[in-house]
Amino acid sequence: MGVNERLQSYALSDVSNLKVHGRTTGQRSPLTLFWTGSAVELNAKASELWVEIESDYDLYEPWISILINGVPVSRQMLTAGRYWICVFRGMNENVVKNVRIVKDVQAMNGDPGCSLQIHAVKSDGVFVPVEEKPYKIEFIGDSITSGEGAIGAKAEEDWIPMWFSAIHNYTAMTAEALNAEYRVISQSGWGVLTSWDNNPNANIPDYYEQVCGLVTGDKNAALGAGDKYDFNSWQPDVVVINLGSNDGGAFQTPAWKDPVTGKVYKQRLNEDGTYHEEDLATFENAVTRFLDRLRKNNPEAHLVWAYGMLGFPMMPAIYRAVDAYTKQVGDTKVSVIQLPNTTEETVGARSHPGELSHRKTADALAEYLKGILKF
Amino acid sequence: MGVNERLQSYALSDVSNLKVHGRTTGQRSPLTLFWTGSAVELNAKASELWVEIESDYDLYEPWISILINGVPVSRQMLTAGRYWICVFRGMNENVVKNVRIVKDVQAMNGDPGCSLQIHAVKSDGVFVPVEEKPYKIEFIGDSITSGEGAIGAKAEEDWIPMWFSAIHNYTAMTAEALNAEYRVISQSGWGVLTSWDNNPNANIPDYYEQVCGLVTGDKNAALGAGDKYDFNSWQPDVVVINLGSNDGGAFQTPAWKDPVTGKVYKQRLNEDGTYHEEDLATFENAVTRFLDRLRKNNPEAHLVWAYGMLGFPMMPAIYRAVDAYTKQVGDTKVSVIQLPNTTEETVGARSHPGELSHRKTADALAEYLKGILKF
Amino acid sequence: MGVNERLQSYALSDVSNLKVHGRTTGQRSPLTLFWTGSAVELNAKASELWVEIESDYDLYEPWISILINGVPVSRQMLTAGRYWICVFRGMNENVVKNVRIVKDVQAMNGDPGCSLQIHAVKSDGVFVPVEEKPYKIEFIGDSITSGEGAIGAKAEEDWIPMWFSAIHNYTAMTAEALNAEYRVISQSGWGVLTSWDNNPNANIPDYYEQVCGLVTGDKNAALGAGDKYDFNSWQPDVVVINLGSNDGGAFQTPAWKDPVTGKVYKQRLNEDGTYHEEDLATFENAVTRFLDRLRKNNPEAHLVWAYGMLGFPMMPAIYRAVDAYTKQVGDTKVSVIQLPNTTEETVGARSHPGELSHRKTADALAEYLKGILKF
Amino acid sequence: MGVNERLQSYALSDVSNLKVHGRTTGQRSPLTLFWTGSAVELNAKASELWVEIESDYDLYEPWISILINGVPVSRQMLTAGRYWICVFRGMNENVVKNVRIVKDVQAMNGDPGCSLQIHAVKSDGVFVPVEEKPYKIEFIGDSITSGEGAIGAKAEEDWIPMWFSAIHNYTAMTAEALNAEYRVISQSGWGVLTSWDNNPNANIPDYYEQVCGLVTGDKNAALGAGDKYDFNSWQPDVVVINLGSNDGGAFQTPAWKDPVTGKVYKQRLNEDGTYHEEDLATFENAVTRFLDRLRKNNPEAHLVWAYGMLGFPMMPAIYRAVDAYTKQVGDTKVSVIQLPNTTEETVGARSHPGELSHRKTADALAEYLKGILKF
Repeated sequence: MGVNERLQSYALSDVSNLKVHGRTTGQRSPLTLFWTGSAVELNAKASELWVEIESDYDLYEPWISILINGVPVSRQMLTAGRYWICVFRGMNENVVKNVRIVKDVQAMNGDPGCSLQIHAVKSDGVFVPVEEKPYKIEFIGDSITSGEGAIGAKAEEDWIPMWFSAIHNYTAMTAEALNAEYRVISQSGWGVLTSWDNNPNANIPDYYEQVCGLVTGDKNAALGAGDKYDFNSWQPDVVVINLGSNDGGAFQTPAWKDPVTGKVYKQRLNEDGTYHEEDLATFENAVTRFLDRLRKNNPEAHLVWAYGMLGFPMMPAIYRAVDAYTKQVGDTKVSVIQLPNTTEETVGARSHPGELSHRKTADALAEYLKGILKF
Repeated sequence: MGVNERLQSYALSDVSNLKVHGRTTGQRSPLTLFWTGSAVELNAKASELWVEIESDYDLYEPWISILINGVPVSRQMLTAGRYWICVFRGMNENVVKNVRIVKDVQAMNGDPGCSLQIHAVKSDGVFVPVEEKPYKIEFIGDSITSGEGAIGAKAEEDWIPMWFSAIHNYTAMTAEALNAEYRVISQSGWGVLTSWDNNPNANIPDYYEQVCGLVTGDKNAALGAGDKYDFNSWQPDVVVINLGSNDGGAFQTPAWKDPVTGKVYKQRLNEDGTYHEEDLATFENAVTRFLDRLRKNNPEAHLVWAYGMLGFPMMPAIYRAVDAYTKQVGDTKVSVIQLPNTTEETVGARSHPGELSHRKTADALAEYLKGILKF
Repeated sequence: MGVNERLQSYALSDVSNLKVHGRTTGQRSPLTLFWTGSAVELNAKASELWVEIESDYDLYEPWISILINGVPVSRQMLTAGRYWICVFRGMNENVVKNVRIVKDVQAMNGDPGCSLQIHAVKSDGVFVPVEEKPYKIEFIGDSITSGEGAIGAKAEEDWIPMWFSAIHNYTAMTAEALNAEYRVISQSGWGVLTSWDNNPNANIPDYYEQVCGLVTGDKNAALGAGDKYDFNSWQPDVVVINLGSNDGGAFQTPAWKDPVTGKVYKQRLNEDGTYHEEDLATFENAVTRFLDRLRKNNPEAHLVWAYGMLGFPMMPAIYRAVDAYTKQVGDTKVSVIQLPNTTEETVGARSHPGELSHRKTADALAEYLKGILKF
Repeated sequence: MGVNERLQSYALSDVSNLKVHGRTTGQRSPLTLFWTGSAVELNAKASELWVEIESDYDLYEPWISILINGVPVSRQMLTAGRYWICVFRGMNENVVKNVRIVKDVQAMNGDPGCSLQIHAVKSDGVFVPVEEKPYKIEFIGDSITSGEGAIGAKAEEDWIPMWFSAIHNYTAMTAEALNAEYRVISQSGWGVLTSWDNNPNANIPDYYEQVCGLVTGDKNAALGAGDKYDFNSWQPDVVVINLGSNDGGAFQTPAWKDPVTGKVYKQRLNEDGTYHEEDLATFENAVTRFLDRLRKNNPEAHLVWAYGMLGFPMMPAIYRAVDAYTKQVGDTKVSVIQLPNTTEETVGARSHPGELSHRKTADALAEYLKGILKF
């Protein structure tokens, strides 16, 4: 093999004109990518570019996608270890390439050992500034927003990182349609109040104010996952909350018993199959409280509750909760939109929305957000 | 990282139920994948699967795509070296997964150092038989058939392996639509008579009877690239020949001078911009001779000349040549089909057909071949 | 011209196997078609078929579409008079043709002279029974449901019957997708509480219990438009209510002054552009009361409020009103669905939903109703 | 009914700014529309417009479509008689409406009684000039070009005018895509040499130099159908010849015996199912001769043989014939394009191309003609 003698290595902390996407700490030696859709972005004027990553996990390995000039050209599993990955080689050194290296899998609450870090890059060229985008969007959600099932055959049933995609995902598609920068906070199975199986700890709001508080274990703690997130550093124009699917599921699944306290949690159905009013009210209170918390931390953002990709049984409750919030606070910069439901034609792996379902949602959501952003 | 203690390693030559796609030698220790679309296919009943590859090159690195149950889930550059790649992990060990590891880049005439080999697999399960498909198709072509530009942004201009795709390719799509096994013989820039720049050595027919004779250098010779290909081992039902685009281009480009003999080659235009009749006749003779060679080696196959994805100025000449062949030989199992032209909407990188253009061609070609195969 | 000597004329009242669609009176000598989508349907085993219609109007002429075997083949303006129209001729007399002659324009509140009647048919064959469909749907709406703008160039601005379509209409498309019989109650500009311009008389609920009470004038009275509608004669499985767009518009338009009483009506905006709470409550009460009335008359039907094809500012109020209704009555067979918004790509004439927008709504609505109808 | 007192009637010969489409005689009192796609076009600044037509036939009645501002809004059978048809009413009298009244059915060789004439218009406004289009295209063809089966259910089998469409037709679609004026010469079942059933009289070339020579009977003769056509009056930029499908069919159908001379005609198959060489040569000579005739009458036009919508077995012969023509005459402004084949998804009534097949052909053909017209 020919060797490119002109390659020079740079610690990531020394790379000027580096753009980091996604909530993370200030640390750059190395940089940790926590959330799906997190990324490093570079405009490389070079013939060759490598990136040094470090991957670890007990169960669920990280995956990345690489985009060159906006087009995904590579997607790979990152087996454990610290090593160099070649991003491109043999290109015209006088032409600037926009490069995004994107974490393709969600933060993993279920695997304390899971982490993805970037140490360094090497190249034979220079990095020029990445243009700022005019809008910022934060997406908050569950497996849908994590892109679970957005890649893979319909027959797939294993719960593994391979079937997650940050790219075939309405978040990325919506942001691209609006020319917006975006961040994602999401966790499969979680809700506003409880998880799909009634676990009250598996709720997003409790972790919203941390960098990535829902990951577990000492290593993640040491990486700063539990640090208070600095909202001033990145104020979104819009926060999209795509939660409720798992809260709805909790009514249909068995109770959850806290292994420590022995306390049992269950969102109840009435005998006629309708939702128990008290439990529904508890959910609605959780929505209202979360809106409060979102507003506190994002004083200027439009808050858009976007729901419906896997059915929309909780919609009346969401509307009531948003109503209640609006009345209590007098805040009118909040609204609800129903997203296109997933059909047999648009479903993907693991009975989750496939790429086509994500596309339809992105079309509808981008159109709606254009009105809000006054395009 | 947790380690799977149950993984066992197998030399590829010891793997029963291995299916190899694409022309290659009988050698399995290791197996060499020469052509784009070449692949190993396995039905793995296992929770985890790795493959040991060896990649080398002076200029143009190999890429692979991995398909699980027919869906591409990974695509990666193979930097030089011998190493293990994880295909999947953490899956249900009782379920059979169909796996294809596909060479995503053409054989590289321009890089004698380029090679891709597979040494071994390791797994914690077993390999069950891969079902035989009812049809076999051989595709012969140039950059179009190599999938040049089928991936990447429209702005891309570098001639590098990254922009080649065996997957976003009419060959793979047509074969899938027909439930056919397929092989590809292709080289960017080459033609029936000459290359796009009038080089008479860059013609596919001269190498058709070898395993992969158009690759160069001692290493490839040692790997058996120049060996006589055993046509009896794999007789296609249809041979699709998508050649002529570069032969047409040769009329528009400067002459080529043989560096050894000093002889100059040029397909000439008349003053009014039409093709010089003599040179056109030379092209037609090359087509006719190639059909003879194809028939000799594929006595039962339907020969389908399929042309037009980047314009169709050579179509009258191709029809004349096929006519001449039919008359000389009395062979009626040969026909011509015009493929959908690439438009602004369907173009990909490097001004070549994009994924959508390949899709349109696959739709038209599969429909046509259904008639021939008596679906 | 050759004359078909075998044609025989039949008063409509004498035609057995006649299927009448749409609310109308029991009168068949002649039959009056009031609403858009109203129709006569026949299975004609004949070579030729004519229909005798009578059309009248002061301002807005009726139009019809003719469907043969489910495909629209003719659409024509019906100028005033009583005359025969040829439906088909020259066909195989041994083959049964399904024929629908459909009123393509809404009932016209603004034109007391407008009427469309069918007197007779003539044919050289026989009429065989029309198969009953397994489902019945009633659609209630405004200009959207009347198909205003579903045909015609985007530039069209005249308010004329030509731009109305019962065929390029989500009602017909949804019914076809579900293999359902359907009826339509609709009027451009009208709402649940008021019209788009604050006229409280222009509300659908007040006329819901009559055959077609919203048309005016002595002639229509004599035709029985104001008769009490016999709900027992046709009980829908689903009632789709697509109202609210004009009620929302009323907040944005000037007050309406009753010419008789001098009383002024206006749905008010607050200074910050939000809806005045009292007026919103008045709207919500109107929704709740209408649901009461719908339930009274359709004891078994699912009530589906479907809204959003021209934006969805009233959605929170609609959800509140449906909630209130459900709580008051304990009725859970009522739900809300947001329909796909109309975009630049899907808009039709007069800034109304075009055919493509109707198609998208039909896709979403049919999918949703499949769940309700337990497909 | 209210009567518009301001309507004034004008003999068509007195209407300035009238645009007539399609080959016809100079006669305007009345104007005869012979071919499918023939039309009158007006830019009417008026609130109301009527047209007086006269229709006659023994077997096959004429149909028209009416387009307002380019959009088809009405389609109707024209039963025999002379009468007024209302085109529009109630529109803004200050706005100009572009109106096309289009003959939707081919000239009828099989019905000497068939004719469609336009006598007069009446309106309350004025007619302003119709803008000239930059290109002119002549289409020559058979049932495909006549739009047979482009409207109607797939199950339809009757050969009746109802299933013909000049609008859902690649001719109209291609012309619209290129902003071109167009004319159509076509007849179902006819070919270059013979009809589908070997009748040598049913060939288009013999009638190409007359206004509409293929219609029959004294009435049509008196209307000038057999007059020499004045090619100078309208010179196309492109002539598209879509013939060959019926010539191909003749090889598969029984012989035709001339009832007068007793002579028998048959395009023969060889025993192996291939075309008999002599008979194929006869077809090719007919193609070559027709190209000669087309060139004589259209000295500057590009001649484009466009074939393949219902399979393309004659393509080799067409290429040979075009080759032969080019060599004999030295004419290079002639080319061949294969059109997209009709599939199960795109087929219409009577096993003919449906609207979607016409759309696909129009897309491909317009793209090709753009290159020729140097867009």
